Amino acid sequence: MTDENSVGIVKTKYFTFAEPPDELKLESGQVLGPITLAYEIYGSLNKEKGNAILIEPALSGDAHAAGFHEGDKEPGWWDSMIGPGKAFDTTKYFVICSNVIGGCKGSTGPSSINPKTGKPYALEFPLITISDMVNAQKYLIGHLGIDRLLCVVGGSMGGMQALQWVASYPDKVRSAIPIATTLKHSPQQIAFDEVGRQAVMGDSDWREGNYYGHGQPEKGLAVARMIGHITYMSDQSMEEKFSRRLKDKNFSFKFITDFEVEGYLRYRGDSFVKRFDANSYLYITKALDYFDLSGGRLIPSGKTIDTRFLVIAFKSDWLYPSYQLQDIVRQLKTRHVDATYCEIKSTYGHDAFLLEVKEETHLIRHFLKKVYKEGT
Amino acid sequence: MTDENSVGIVKTKYFTFAEPPDELKLESGQVLGPITLAYEIYGSLNKEKGNAILIEPALSGDAHAAGFHEGDKEPGWWDSMIGPGKAFDTTKYFVICSNVIGGCKGSTGPSSINPKTGKPYALEFPLITISDMVNAQKYLIGHLGIDRLLCVVGGSMGGMQALQWVASYPDKVRSAIPIATTLKHSPQQIAFDEVGRQAVMGDSDWREGNYYGHGQPEKGLAVARMIGHITYMSDQSMEEKFSRRLKDKNFSFKFITDFEVEGYLRYRGDSFVKRFDANSYLYITKALDYFDLSGGRLIPSGKTIDTRFLVIAFKSDWLYPSYQLQDIVRQLKTRHVDATYCEIKSTYGHDAFLLEVKEETHLIRHFLKKVYKEGT
Repeated sequence: MTDENSVGIVKTKYFTFAEPPDELKLESGQVLGPITLAYEIYGSLNKEKGNAILIEPALSGDAHAAGFHEGDKEPGWWDSMIGPGKAFDTTKYFVICSNVIGGCKGSTGPSSINPKTGKPYALEFPLITISDMVNAQKYLIGHLGIDRLLCVVGGSMGGMQALQWVASYPDKVRSAIPIATTLKHSPQQIAFDEVGRQAVMGDSDWREGNYYGHGQPEKGLAVARMIGHITYMSDQSMEEKFSRRLKDKNFSFKFITDFEVEGYLRYRGDSFVKRFDANSYLYITKALDYFDLSGGRLIPSGKTIDTRFLVIAFKSDWLYPSYQLQDIVRQLKTRHVDATYCEIKSTYGHDAFLLEVKEETHLIRHFLKKVYKEGT
Repeated sequence: MTDENSVGIVKTKYFTFAEPPDELKLESGQVLGPITLAYEIYGSLNKEKGNAILIEPALSGDAHAAGFHEGDKEPGWWDSMIGPGKAFDTTKYFVICSNVIGGCKGSTGPSSINPKTGKPYALEFPLITISDMVNAQKYLIGHLGIDRLLCVVGGSMGGMQALQWVASYPDKVRSAIPIATTLKHSPQQIAFDEVGRQAVMGDSDWREGNYYGHGQPEKGLAVARMIGHITYMSDQSMEEKFSRRLKDKNFSFKFITDFEVEGYLRYRGDSFVKRFDANSYLYITKALDYFDLSGGRLIPSGKTIDTRFLVIAFKSDWLYPSYQLQDIVRQLKTRHVDATYCEIKSTYGHDAFLLEVKEETHLIRHFLKKVYKEGT
């Protein structure tokens, strides 16, 4: 299962910060605590503690970015990019990946037990923002003994976290690589999220969020995920993968799966339901929609930062179209920040950030080498 | 309410063809009858019966395309295009609009009473195709005493019916104007339809289609319509209409409507539920997905036709992108059919076919005049 380019067998770790003042004051004004963060680490922190890279997950991503969990056949979600000799070379860098608060993969979220009631939070869990996610991660980074990150990197929601790190803690970040992401959701992006939320909340099995112990609102969550999957692919990649191929020889003339693409979507929807909490889906999509670092909020006026940027867009990504990445670069340039923009010619749509490994590796390896060298 | 450019007060009419052999043999092999078609007519048929134009509705369109129903404040769905002096000038042409079988606006569909059981068909209704819809319309056209249509025109699904008229009855159609449509749904278009169907069928109120007398599967159907509305608008038109404007001054930090675009979608979803039958939604989207006149099926090999075409695409329409309209033109040109292609520079997305009245009027008026003149 593992090879010389793999980080091998890994384990998810957990960090809990429990007592006030370690309770997190949230952007909503509410507080949350104790908080547990699930995270994984690959490679070793050097003695200057200057080689730490924080990998930020996307909506459904977890802390398991690379290597294999004992007994698993599939590696972590960005294994193609993290390991010896890979883009995030673990023989050089100390790579951290942490799951977000609000999620359901070991970090505190709506499905976690509320210590005040002994029951899952459900909708008692406060709404969290991308800024709250990053504030929680800052405790983890401190816990790991790191004062300044060499790089914060992520695609999609991971890119928003990378941008938020710079906005919140510019002195703590030497470089950032936002990929296939945006300074703010457009109304179209909000609309897709809202339809997904309505699908979940419209499912009678959702029970106003109190479904724990009864089973998930499976149908609603599957529909939400199916919508998501359409937006992750491009018209062209769907054509290449499915075209109009039928599951069977002829049309069924029934309301069952006729086309392969229908079967694929149902499969994706059904498998998501098994691994992801419906309330987490609501909380995280709301955090995505609230996020807004446009209008000078990325770098507050009067502030000078020396964080360097590599901004990556994909030509066929219509969920986070390249104009949104160009907006990031424009905002950086007007503040005299060192930023490189690359648009990769991919047909994969938004999924490209997980699939265009060769191109990304080329860009990122080079960029990191330069940033790392300048700091030593 | 009415003015000199309006066809004025109109009434929907009904035509029923009941006895075998007037029972319709469907593409699925099943039969359907008796069949009622709801339709409206505007203008007068000339004595040569050569000025009849058939307007084809889109998914949620009905027979009421122009003028006002007694007491209504809103005119028919394409009133801006049909009337004295308008694109489809009712002082010159005899304009017919018919609702499709499978629908819920007076034509026979799943919510109609099955004469064999005395109850609504529900899923006993056979699956129908665009070809079946057109075959039913042919009875209506015959009933109206028309042997050959001057023009068949429609946007979206209406465009598919226009194309199907040519494929099925080329000698009966002097000209066709397919707008914002396609020869076949791509996997992405099928995917959007399938998610909508899953939303409806996943709603426990759907009751396997037998919800008549119990109330619609409102939440599922609303979600399906919300998805639809996103695809009908463009990223840019949503930005222009909503941007990130909030309903209230601040974020709610709750799972309620924060952004105006969310409120708009919910409103659209909720109002659709009041006027459209959920099972009709399933049947009609399936007909859309099955439709395929690619690969020479539009004009069978060896056949020569003299139907003239005006094919209209819209630049920002990403649901029926312009390459699909160009495919229609390509197929026509290879068969030496007279076809004009126009791509209108609109930001409205797919909705443009209902909104870009001025540009469409200019193109269509000119085209019809030419076709009409050559026939007299």
